Amino acid sequence: MAVSETRIETNGLPRLPHGVRAAGTACGIKSDGAPDLGLIAFDSPAQWAGVFTTNAAAAAPVRWCKQLLGAPVQALVVNSGNANACTGRDGERAVEAAARCAASALGCDPRAVLVASTGPIGVTLPLAPIAAGIPQLAARPGTDLTPFATAIMTTDTVAKLASASAGEAVLVGAAKGAAMLAPNMATMLAFVVTDAAIDSGVMQSALSEAVANSFNRISLDACESTNDSVFLFSTGRTKDVSAGVFGKALAEVCSELAEMIVRDAEGGSKLVRIKVRGASDDDAAAVLAKAVAASSLWRAAAGGGDPNWGRVVAAMGSTDVELDLKELSVGIGGVPLYLYGAPCGNEARAAVEMAGDEFIVECTVGRGPGCVEVLSADLTSAYVELNARGST
Amino acid sequence: MAVSETRIETNGLPRLPHGVRAAGTACGIKSDGAPDLGLIAFDSPAQWAGVFTTNAAAAAPVRWCKQLLGAPVQALVVNSGNANACTGRDGERAVEAAARCAASALGCDPRAVLVASTGPIGVTLPLAPIAAGIPQLAARPGTDLTPFATAIMTTDTVAKLASASAGEAVLVGAAKGAAMLAPNMATMLAFVVTDAAIDSGVMQSALSEAVANSFNRISLDACESTNDSVFLFSTGRTKDVSAGVFGKALAEVCSELAEMIVRDAEGGSKLVRIKVRGASDDDAAAVLAKAVAASSLWRAAAGGGDPNWGRVVAAMGSTDVELDLKELSVGIGGVPLYLYGAPCGNEARAAVEMAGDEFIVECTVGRGPGCVEVLSADLTSAYVELNARGST
Repeated sequence: MAVSETRIETNGLPRLPHGVRAAGTACGIKSDGAPDLGLIAFDSPAQWAGVFTTNAAAAAPVRWCKQLLGAPVQALVVNSGNANACTGRDGERAVEAAARCAASALGCDPRAVLVASTGPIGVTLPLAPIAAGIPQLAARPGTDLTPFATAIMTTDTVAKLASASAGEAVLVGAAKGAAMLAPNMATMLAFVVTDAAIDSGVMQSALSEAVANSFNRISLDACESTNDSVFLFSTGRTKDVSAGVFGKALAEVCSELAEMIVRDAEGGSKLVRIKVRGASDDDAAAVLAKAVAASSLWRAAAGGGDPNWGRVVAAMGSTDVELDLKELSVGIGGVPLYLYGAPCGNEARAAVEMAGDEFIVECTVGRGPGCVEVLSADLTSAYVELNARGST
Repeated sequence: MAVSETRIETNGLPRLPHGVRAAGTACGIKSDGAPDLGLIAFDSPAQWAGVFTTNAAAAAPVRWCKQLLGAPVQALVVNSGNANACTGRDGERAVEAAARCAASALGCDPRAVLVASTGPIGVTLPLAPIAAGIPQLAARPGTDLTPFATAIMTTDTVAKLASASAGEAVLVGAAKGAAMLAPNMATMLAFVVTDAAIDSGVMQSALSEAVANSFNRISLDACESTNDSVFLFSTGRTKDVSAGVFGKALAEVCSELAEMIVRDAEGGSKLVRIKVRGASDDDAAAVLAKAVAASSLWRAAAGGGDPNWGRVVAAMGSTDVELDLKELSVGIGGVPLYLYGAPCGNEARAAVEMAGDEFIVECTVGRGPGCVEVLSADLTSAYVELNARGST
């Protein structure tokens, strides 16, 4: 199988930290010849933290990475075009073989190699293209994360990259994701690399918190994936970065990547910010906002530019969160539609606010301190048609 | 506003029990002049039982009926074209006024009149057309339930009627529903009338059980409605009907109506039976089956005839139910696709089974006694387009 090099596009992002290199290529997993194999390699063992899908059908690569948590790693191999999920013992063997390929090319232990996969479920990962592709990636790694970000795309239409600085240190991240994106997960694939020297426990807690407030605050189709994973790597070369400054920078990168994912939603035509405030706590607010984000009826109305606030209220009412309609108000784009339990007209004005490619739904559900913003997308015929054909 | 009589179609159903009459008409709530007002009237006060939506945003008519539970009733007024949900105090006044109209026409107490509504949320029920329509309905009631079943339709394309006998007694039922249909509810609008003399406690428990195994085992779009209600009325004229025989007949009528609803799903092109067996109990089986029924990705694949069993497994894996993949098997139309945690090919054969307008997804999740069958529909562009325009 031919191995071709992917186009490298510059994008104004800072280079990867010293001691980190990345590459991407088309190795032949995807039948259309698009880039499908990425590598991040570390000159010295890197500390890492990870957050993974809670799906009981977690893919073989997810299970491989989870058992390696705690020990430093030398490399990460990511393929698109195949999720290697629900593939049984064959899938496990394929992950180990991919790790061995990379270990051999880089001269490290296979258990110092993480593996992540994304694509259709139920097809065992083919080894020949990976075995051919890895040595090429290992031979020509660069300091630009773009080829890697391009190689991990599935139905994504743009590569997703973000960066931030934390004191003297930098954070550079990449993500992919366009569907099978929903609450209760540790979300799609995202990778953040930094040179900040951060205690490994702090790394894990900072990542968990950043994920909770970014990737776990988006919902495209209410379908939880088998492969969601977010990784944070650190070379530890830049000392004296405060945990607070680092956490803030990490949250910024994760939020930026999460928003990029929603803007690139499969078939989506609008980014819809669902804000809920006045709930008893943030968790209750999130349950309500995610119920709206998951409502097919509301999402279809959002796509059609119809200010159907009734579907918003019905979706919130269907959760286990207690609601007092007399305390409930809903507005769209600053236009009140339902105020303290009664309709207040204004649909024509709200429809104007929904006409663009982004709008806000604001729900006040009481006088509690709980609030949240969930990013979501509309439901369109394009999504249905894309997924009727399968393969993602 | 003109009040026109709806067409009455005969359909081979048994006539309503003695002492029960029904009618339907177009009173002008719907702007297209379609039938939108139905009445069922009892010569003598009838015992009744009801199961209602658990949505916190339950509509005004639902709240009206719930507080009347326990006392016999003389009539039921149902309108389509307006849900009278999320309409605040105005909505409550509209329900009371509709009950008063019927009470005046029939010569009974307003609190002996139940009211049910279905249609768009957030618009207060207009009283003028109802006030004009009720006397006409009261003047010309018949023993055929079809005009009533026609008057309660929204985006339904067919009137839904079913009947069964329980010893010497008959049960005749009607239902409507095409979207905003999901788990955790006491389901859309359905009405069953019988002459069987059944203890009122038994009536309520038989209805709750029949609903649990019929209307609560269907899921069209995972959206729970604000107006779901199922009513069972009895004139009590036919004595000596055993509770067991009656319960079985009631379950039969409810299941038949539930299946009619799924076959008439908004935009749906296929009826999909999702069978889960081997769960720890029936409730766990239902959680798993409903997660599959609610998955937009799986439903889009179902519409496209793509045997994407990976989306079925991912949907089950996303629930709180513990799953052991090594015990998990999925087949479609009798064709095994995923066997004890590993793919087994056969996609082409399964695609053939999916080509018709109905197919079965069989999931074995372990060795427990829990099993369930959930009826669902596929997700199509037609559903999205219909709901992008709003108004239902």
